[in-house]
Amino acid sequence: MKRLALLQKKARARREEACFIAEGIKMVSEAPKDRLEEIYISRSFAGEYSSWKAPEGCPVEVVDDKVFKAVSDTETPQGILAVIRQKQWDWRAVSTSKSPMILFLESVQDPGNLGTILRTGEGAGIDGILMSRGCADLYQPKVVRATMGSIYRVPAAVVDDPEETIKSLRRKGIRVYAAHLAGTHSYYEKDYRSGCCFMIGNEANGLSDGLAGLATDYIRIPMKGQVESLNAGVAASLLMYEARRQREMEAVQYV
Amino acid sequence: MKRLALLQKKARARREEACFIAEGIKMVSEAPKDRLEEIYISRSFAGEYSSWKAPEGCPVEVVDDKVFKAVSDTETPQGILAVIRQKQWDWRAVSTSKSPMILFLESVQDPGNLGTILRTGEGAGIDGILMSRGCADLYQPKVVRATMGSIYRVPAAVVDDPEETIKSLRRKGIRVYAAHLAGTHSYYEKDYRSGCCFMIGNEANGLSDGLAGLATDYIRIPMKGQVESLNAGVAASLLMYEARRQREMEAVQYV
Repeated sequence: MKRLALLQKKARARREEACFIAEGIKMVSEAPKDRLEEIYISRSFAGEYSSWKAPEGCPVEVVDDKVFKAVSDTETPQGILAVIRQKQWDWRAVSTSKSPMILFLESVQDPGNLGTILRTGEGAGIDGILMSRGCADLYQPKVVRATMGSIYRVPAAVVDDPEETIKSLRRKGIRVYAAHLAGTHSYYEKDYRSGCCFMIGNEANGLSDGLAGLATDYIRIPMKGQVESLNAGVAASLLMYEARRQREMEAVQYV
Repeated sequence: MKRLALLQKKARARREEACFIAEGIKMVSEAPKDRLEEIYISRSFAGEYSSWKAPEGCPVEVVDDKVFKAVSDTETPQGILAVIRQKQWDWRAVSTSKSPMILFLESVQDPGNLGTILRTGEGAGIDGILMSRGCADLYQPKVVRATMGSIYRVPAAVVDDPEETIKSLRRKGIRVYAAHLAGTHSYYEKDYRSGCCFMIGNEANGLSDGLAGLATDYIRIPMKGQVESLNAGVAASLLMYEARRQREMEAVQYV
């Protein structure tokens, strides 16, 4: 139980063990079988979902409701959680397809944003997400929950040297777009049908000058009224889905 | 202080008083002057920001840091909050422009989503947001904070009879789009340059059959991988900005 509590609360424990915890029936049932280490269920869950079956070969431990609630990260736990091995993605793997769509996140701090970005990213069909060390820990409970399962499937890697990484992408011919107030063109005026990487900065401070300076293009999301910026998760979603739209439709045809 | 605590915690108190609380320097300074009732600042804030000036005619009360922290909704309060009168928007006002863009939210529950939708909505230039009674209270602290100030500016109204409201919009020639799994066309295949209303349903259950049945068009957001749905705030944002894009660009021109 102490191990579970540490895995829930400490990024360092998750890193050292290369594991994380996912809660809830949906999250546990979508977990890749070969990375499932152990499942914990509460006594109430065991009674209520007596027909529930653990994947073959995965150990299941039944614990008291009180104990479960103490290690759960949610206020009203469903009564099921799993310890799952992290997958170590090689960052180079995100740029191997013919026209990759990549997201680079610099110091994105809000766990809800990070999780939502993975979820939307899978939907938009991105090749992968690269993150600076300053981003929130991908495996913290709030991020895992907000991904709704995409954390199992979207290639995501923390890179040590963001600037070198961006340079390497550029050398492969991938255009790098900075969402930036200095952008002279609206995001929907650019062509994202070839390999592209969108850089999204910190919620409060935007992109660092170092990274922004490496962009091939500055784009902005046009805003009416007195809005100064959009939520980072929303901004990333708009860019990824505009690329998706362009890739799906060679020419816009209204129906 | 008891009044403040009630306004923070109870939707009923906010409704009965037709007031709400906004916290933080940005939120207080953007508040419309004619709706500001009173400002509270902590003793620390008064010391640290001695050059800060309240708007003329608005009473300011300095309270102990402990007292402030007790009524604040944030963990690390900036030390400034204001009581602000709610503005009663007439729902008919959202459909008076030539080609209105309207959002209808049915039972959207997550305060962060609701706030983000207002913020993105202002950016996208919507005419207003209509909500069913089942939506989260617009004036609860988490929503107010997530709007980043848009709550002062975006017309938003709760309607008693959603179906009658939608019928009334249709009678005005406004097309009504349901984001729905039954959608046969991707959202970017439709033309939103004339008056349009997007209906977004509850996070877990989507739109009710009654409302969905009143749509003129079913649209879907295409999703790759195993994604079953997108976050409601993201879905609303994609639709509003697609309408914005179409309204800005008669024809897509890449640069």
